[in-house]
Amino acid sequence: MKGIRTMTLHLARPTAQLRTMTATTVSTRAPAATPSTPSTPTTSSLERAIEDRSSRLPGFHRLSARARQAVLVRWAGLDEAETALLGGTGALTLERADAMVENAAGVFGLPLGIATNFRIDGRDVLVPMAVEEPSVVAAASFGALLARAGGGFTTSADAPVMIGQVQLLDLPDDDLDMAAARILAARDGILEVAHRQSETLPRLGGGAKDLVVRPFRDTPVGPMLVVHIHYDTRDAMGANAVNTACEAVAPLLAEVTGGRVLLRILSNLATERRATARCRIPAAALARDGRDGHEVAQRIVEANALAVVDPWRAATHNKGILNGIDPVVIATGNDWRGVEAGAHAYAARDGRYGSLTDWHLDASGDLEGSLELPLAVGIVGGGTRAHPQAALGLKIIGAESAQGLARVIAAVGLAQNLSALRALVCEGIQDGHMALHARQLALSAGAETHEAEAVATVLVAEGAIRAGRAAEVLGELRATQTPAPSR
Amino acid sequence: MKGIRTMTLHLARPTAQLRTMTATTVSTRAPAATPSTPSTPTTSSLERAIEDRSSRLPGFHRLSARARQAVLVRWAGLDEAETALLGGTGALTLERADAMVENAAGVFGLPLGIATNFRIDGRDVLVPMAVEEPSVVAAASFGALLARAGGGFTTSADAPVMIGQVQLLDLPDDDLDMAAARILAARDGILEVAHRQSETLPRLGGGAKDLVVRPFRDTPVGPMLVVHIHYDTRDAMGANAVNTACEAVAPLLAEVTGGRVLLRILSNLATERRATARCRIPAAALARDGRDGHEVAQRIVEANALAVVDPWRAATHNKGILNGIDPVVIATGNDWRGVEAGAHAYAARDGRYGSLTDWHLDASGDLEGSLELPLAVGIVGGGTRAHPQAALGLKIIGAESAQGLARVIAAVGLAQNLSALRALVCEGIQDGHMALHARQLALSAGAETHEAEAVATVLVAEGAIRAGRAAEVLGELRATQTPAPSR
Repeated sequence: MKGIRTMTLHLARPTAQLRTMTATTVSTRAPAATPSTPSTPTTSSLERAIEDRSSRLPGFHRLSARARQAVLVRWAGLDEAETALLGGTGALTLERADAMVENAAGVFGLPLGIATNFRIDGRDVLVPMAVEEPSVVAAASFGALLARAGGGFTTSADAPVMIGQVQLLDLPDDDLDMAAARILAARDGILEVAHRQSETLPRLGGGAKDLVVRPFRDTPVGPMLVVHIHYDTRDAMGANAVNTACEAVAPLLAEVTGGRVLLRILSNLATERRATARCRIPAAALARDGRDGHEVAQRIVEANALAVVDPWRAATHNKGILNGIDPVVIATGNDWRGVEAGAHAYAARDGRYGSLTDWHLDASGDLEGSLELPLAVGIVGGGTRAHPQAALGLKIIGAESAQGLARVIAAVGLAQNLSALRALVCEGIQDGHMALHARQLALSAGAETHEAEAVATVLVAEGAIRAGRAAEVLGELRATQTPAPSR
Repeated sequence: MKGIRTMTLHLARPTAQLRTMTATTVSTRAPAATPSTPSTPTTSSLERAIEDRSSRLPGFHRLSARARQAVLVRWAGLDEAETALLGGTGALTLERADAMVENAAGVFGLPLGIATNFRIDGRDVLVPMAVEEPSVVAAASFGALLARAGGGFTTSADAPVMIGQVQLLDLPDDDLDMAAARILAARDGILEVAHRQSETLPRLGGGAKDLVVRPFRDTPVGPMLVVHIHYDTRDAMGANAVNTACEAVAPLLAEVTGGRVLLRILSNLATERRATARCRIPAAALARDGRDGHEVAQRIVEANALAVVDPWRAATHNKGILNGIDPVVIATGNDWRGVEAGAHAYAARDGRYGSLTDWHLDASGDLEGSLELPLAVGIVGGGTRAHPQAALGLKIIGAESAQGLARVIAAVGLAQNLSALRALVCEGIQDGHMALHARQLALSAGAETHEAEAVATVLVAEGAIRAGRAAEVLGELRATQTPAPSR
């Protein structure tokens, strides 16, 4: 896979050639080409891309992290305070962490990578991704590059309507139909109570929109009814608004039905709040190592087919999609557990857990893909404002609404899936992963960051990617570079 | 819910009474009692708990974050380097982040909270949780306290056996049965090839263990076979080992069957690698606000029943379980997307997406609960060693094997579920959440960390938890404390 290959070159980048730039300017000198990267683009092409606000940033992956920050600052127009939030130190202080959760005793860092090449509904986007796993950011960027060859991603999002649930038990004579009829007769009054729980949302066009009654005649504790309140939460994820509305209508539902209310809470299976992303990849863009692009496209369709019919494959297929989605959800201060639950439960909606994507060939043999899933994310409220770095993530993406953010996230999920499938049906994922694995072994063996690249390069070259060998190579490397300790 | 109530008191703790302690000692003076916490335990009871390595740490939640660090350092025996990894600054450097992922341009911080009260298979455990959502750490601690009343959690874990998948297409005459028979006839040779891909794992008792052939007669691209390789990855999550083994046996499978190999990759639906947790809560421990404990127990069973039959409820029910699980997975350097995919796909295994837990009453009306899910986590390899803070998380938990870690994580998931159900069937979750929501609004309105508590207290007291009011209260607070700016 080109994305992972490119990354491998990056990993093998000699430390001496790391280029540190100041925080606000990018050097106009071209980076020195390394032996393994003969086609290093000139910095001027990167400069042009920044000026054009193109997400196709030539050579970005080969810059030092500090130089990447400088590019990002200019590209996204970050001010000084926002720039400080990128920093490895102090962006989330212990004191702020203590204000966010209970029993805080530290801050856990996730690497924040920037995925490039995204073109979504005609707009170029840089995507911040907070994630620990190697290859995710490179794969997202590569998937976006493939999609870009076909014009990028086309996305859509439902109105931001969440579902709140109220559970009713002990209904008179266990007559669910009668109780349901009574609720429907009182529908407008119930929705009105739910609606007026928020001052803000109705003013913005949100609030209670609909009501659905669902009978369960046979459960482990007997019959029950569940009332769904459809609640438009506008630019918020909306858990608080929905929970408040559910609690507010509960006494009314009990009164109308004569039943007893128990659960009153939102559902993360946000089937009224779906986002979709589509892309078309010209077959030619998929050619690889002498393998015809049409063949690669067909193989991607075949790989997807297994995820359609087999839960064991679908779990990992969808995991790959969420590999792209979760890091953006986190970097924007949203709740990844909610998104995960919605996505996977949706994947099981037909009674068999299956793929969230569809991949097929169009009439000319080009590859068409689509992803559809519930995506309840916000740009106001919750962690999106309480976490200082979340605002940074939102600014980089430039999402102006919850729906806009959901659309970007859906595109990232589809890009990640495309990239994973592409690698899996061609060289297999170990080709790229083993270089990353070698690097992790080097770090585990005690290599400093600047040593890890050299150790990994040797392990890959030898084809012996093992912990014991990593320690040996590290020892050899140090022996050649520093005098042995005298003890 | 007691946990959330307690936390609310903590949130309302006046800043002036925050106590900062040195990094290596805990003050022997009792913290001053606040008006809302008349029963502040003396520090000597906390001291005793630390000495006894009890996870029941009286007053821990009321300490400052720095003081909590000092307790943790002593409790877990952290050395100086490990202690530094707790710090809000520099624990994950930009340089290390750059070595972990591609295109790194920053470090994203997640608050690291410590859940208390866990007793798991007779051992007291403190649980590090990296998470952005308020109430999660408090709820886990409270669930653990309830379970502690019944002796704590009892857990188990399967051997760490992952499933690798190899997909076979274009089988001669589409004769799946014949191809399957040929694979089974060659079983030992195939397993031998898979087995010898790792030097380390077979030596430790791991490696290839079994082989299963699964025919798919009807897929979007026609018939296919999938071969499952069961591979014991010992203390690693094992993705690399399994993927390598799959790729290694692929040519052999193609040769034996005459088919064409496509996908060769692990499954995150790790049905051979499940963990379980159980607990029993004496009904008396569930009594609340004059509500009888037996009634609360019965209501929890009724709430769980809806998650058994309804995917909309089950998604959020299981989301609550993962609210506990993911933060530990992250804090130990493991891959939360893989755990999420395994958990949710497992929840759909019976053809309907449902609850991962079972809650029922025993003969004497006490509450019994259990959780079962695939849990593929490791204590070596991958992010567990590449991320410096992951080693810290593993040390705090004291897990000595992958199975040991999975058992702790399962217990945390069950505790989280118990705590959520308990709150939902009693006062509802908004009672506790609104105080947290008020605090987030205060921070969003621009309150400094030390101002947020005061603003939130006013909003809650007024019952007007709205953004506009938060800004007003913040303005009033500042007007009374500092001279107005002269402009």
